[in-house]
Amino acid sequence: MKHLPTDPYKGVRDFYPEDMAVQQHIFNTWSRTAESFGFERYDASVLESSELYKSKGAANEEMVNEQTYTFTDRGDREVTLRPEMTPSVARMIAGKSKELAFPVRWYSIPNLFRYERTQRGRVREHWQLNCDIFGSTEVVTDVEIIALAYQTIINFGARPEMFEIRVNDRREMKDFYASLGVIDEESVAKVTRLNDRFHKIDRSDYLSELRLIVPGAADAILDHLEESSQSGNEVTRALNAIGINNVKVDRSLARGFDYYTGTIFEFFDTDPENNRSMLGGGRYDNLTELFGGESISGVGFGMGDVTMRDFLETHDLLPSKKAGALVIVIPTEAEFNIDGEKAAMRLRAVGASTLVDISTKKLGKKVAAADHSGAGYILVVGEDEVARGEYVLKNLADGTEMSGTLEDLAQRLAV
Amino acid sequence: MKHLPTDPYKGVRDFYPEDMAVQQHIFNTWSRTAESFGFERYDASVLESSELYKSKGAANEEMVNEQTYTFTDRGDREVTLRPEMTPSVARMIAGKSKELAFPVRWYSIPNLFRYERTQRGRVREHWQLNCDIFGSTEVVTDVEIIALAYQTIINFGARPEMFEIRVNDRREMKDFYASLGVIDEESVAKVTRLNDRFHKIDRSDYLSELRLIVPGAADAILDHLEESSQSGNEVTRALNAIGINNVKVDRSLARGFDYYTGTIFEFFDTDPENNRSMLGGGRYDNLTELFGGESISGVGFGMGDVTMRDFLETHDLLPSKKAGALVIVIPTEAEFNIDGEKAAMRLRAVGASTLVDISTKKLGKKVAAADHSGAGYILVVGEDEVARGEYVLKNLADGTEMSGTLEDLAQRLAV
Repeated sequence: MKHLPTDPYKGVRDFYPEDMAVQQHIFNTWSRTAESFGFERYDASVLESSELYKSKGAANEEMVNEQTYTFTDRGDREVTLRPEMTPSVARMIAGKSKELAFPVRWYSIPNLFRYERTQRGRVREHWQLNCDIFGSTEVVTDVEIIALAYQTIINFGARPEMFEIRVNDRREMKDFYASLGVIDEESVAKVTRLNDRFHKIDRSDYLSELRLIVPGAADAILDHLEESSQSGNEVTRALNAIGINNVKVDRSLARGFDYYTGTIFEFFDTDPENNRSMLGGGRYDNLTELFGGESISGVGFGMGDVTMRDFLETHDLLPSKKAGALVIVIPTEAEFNIDGEKAAMRLRAVGASTLVDISTKKLGKKVAAADHSGAGYILVVGEDEVARGEYVLKNLADGTEMSGTLEDLAQRLAV
Repeated sequence: MKHLPTDPYKGVRDFYPEDMAVQQHIFNTWSRTAESFGFERYDASVLESSELYKSKGAANEEMVNEQTYTFTDRGDREVTLRPEMTPSVARMIAGKSKELAFPVRWYSIPNLFRYERTQRGRVREHWQLNCDIFGSTEVVTDVEIIALAYQTIINFGARPEMFEIRVNDRREMKDFYASLGVIDEESVAKVTRLNDRFHKIDRSDYLSELRLIVPGAADAILDHLEESSQSGNEVTRALNAIGINNVKVDRSLARGFDYYTGTIFEFFDTDPENNRSMLGGGRYDNLTELFGGESISGVGFGMGDVTMRDFLETHDLLPSKKAGALVIVIPTEAEFNIDGEKAAMRLRAVGASTLVDISTKKLGKKVAAADHSGAGYILVVGEDEVARGEYVLKNLADGTEMSGTLEDLAQRLAV
């Protein structure tokens, strides 16, 4: 018989307990921070009707056709594994726009799929924290959403100097280009795409390329970009006012998605070893228009698990291995396994996580394994203990022991 | 322009915050209980190579072809959205069988897909708590896995009389049939399938159908089934010993999956309004054989979110609506929104979840909304407060107020 491979499907990850503990640490920190800002959690299925992604025009049609998992179901419906969360949440907001009390603050931690050539750091499935405030165009919501992204990173134990927040404004840039006579959409799009490479290429190369696109406006645009880091804008000043100082205006900041219409921002790791974008987001107008009904604006961001883990590893912020159960119950021999389970049930009832070592190892090896697991206590269950109804709870950290009935010991653990 | 529908894809669910809170309550209770038994969490992708589900023979091939979401990816690989978790976890266990210290206790909360005709209570995507102990054939592991399923239900606030645990043993039944001369696999399978309907049909109908399959053994089998609830077996007696008494042997218990080889069990809701199976599981031998390597046994169960929610609703065990933020900061006017955000950042730093009401509502309406949200406190931020640096924190439950700087009030909340 031919054996099946034990690898996961190409480009996706298995999470063995050690990796899952890291993943859970990331998810828990994300959700704890979002909830500390009063955000409510939502979710949708990973399966969406493909038409949800096709309606934004030809460029999107290409994305759906070439970079998504799209297939036809048995009922002849075209289905896509969501490549991003924004269309799903826009659909949900539009579906209850009459009932929701705006502004609403929502977050989610969806898995997203992209069919990409697999390479280092590129996976076909990743998880993302998505946070949005819908139904307000006030600048304070731009500020709050950036503050939430900031606080999320801080809550992993990061210091502000480990990352930098860059802010730009699509509308401001558009107005500035217009003031130079650059108003046709194609030129604006070309300049924006070139700006995206501003920090990666030489100043002179940037300028020559820019002159090819907008000959009369190139020098003024370069000046505007270069002076941006000395300036602030309404958003960066408000961020400073609430205590966030690792922020600057960067007028070269572009962001790929075409639906942003106002403030855009990205967080960059300042470590030279991992100098890249950690997350990004921005403001968009009327994302719900595809569904009809009233116009609803929003501002939000997405932060990926792979990028987050890279940042935490780079800055040595990953927690040490998670301890398992608090108490290890050790039956001296197999015949006391059920007595061990009985003792464990009693200890769990007071909230003490308890594992029964039912392996066939010798007593000494069981004690060593308990110590190695990071458990706080062991409780041996053997002939004598069962006969007398008296047990010894040993503290593995300091070697102290407490004796008593299971009831007594449970009460001690409950304190 | 034609508007897009706001419904989710057919057969899957949107989780708006209210439903998501219930879902999170279920997931949290599941994971808390599993971890209280020392189980470690793992996960895998919802995407698996289709061959993983095809290798168990023709019956499975049919299941893969007709009841799963299976498609061909852009690299010409056949991919399936996992319909159950056991093949994935078997693959992972087989992949690290040399490194794992058996027995291992693992749990997961995967979403699973089945392409089914949608009907009441039938969804195409559901979530399931999966718990398994791998690498031990000791009866104590059967007992522990049932105890974990039991404790999970109890931890939702259920009382033992709300459900009943039925236990059977595939091997014992096989030996019993053999003692009556019934040894061919087809007859055993037919009897097992008929037994599955034992509680749903008349005694006389059962007996006539049984006589058609095994003429000479029918009466003995019926006797055996009927006396089962008066008997105990090793598993039920051990469960009694550790304090679980809502358990009985039910020799008609069949369980659909063909891979069980020893103990099988199901939990039934005892409420006549919802009298159905809540969860099931059992022991299987060498589930990893498809992957080669050493033989590894396991015992486990799966518990679905839809079934769980039905049980909780039937017995009125769903928690009341989850409160939002602890503190609502209320700027008197829009110009104090940023000051409100600043105050909120300070309160969050001591762990108090804090929402800033940046809506355009009047002050009185904001206070009423805060009260309605279930918040514990409000903090008004206006001209006077900002100028003096003195704020009032009002306790919404008892109407008492505390005054002080943000620092003072944060310290009070931290206590």
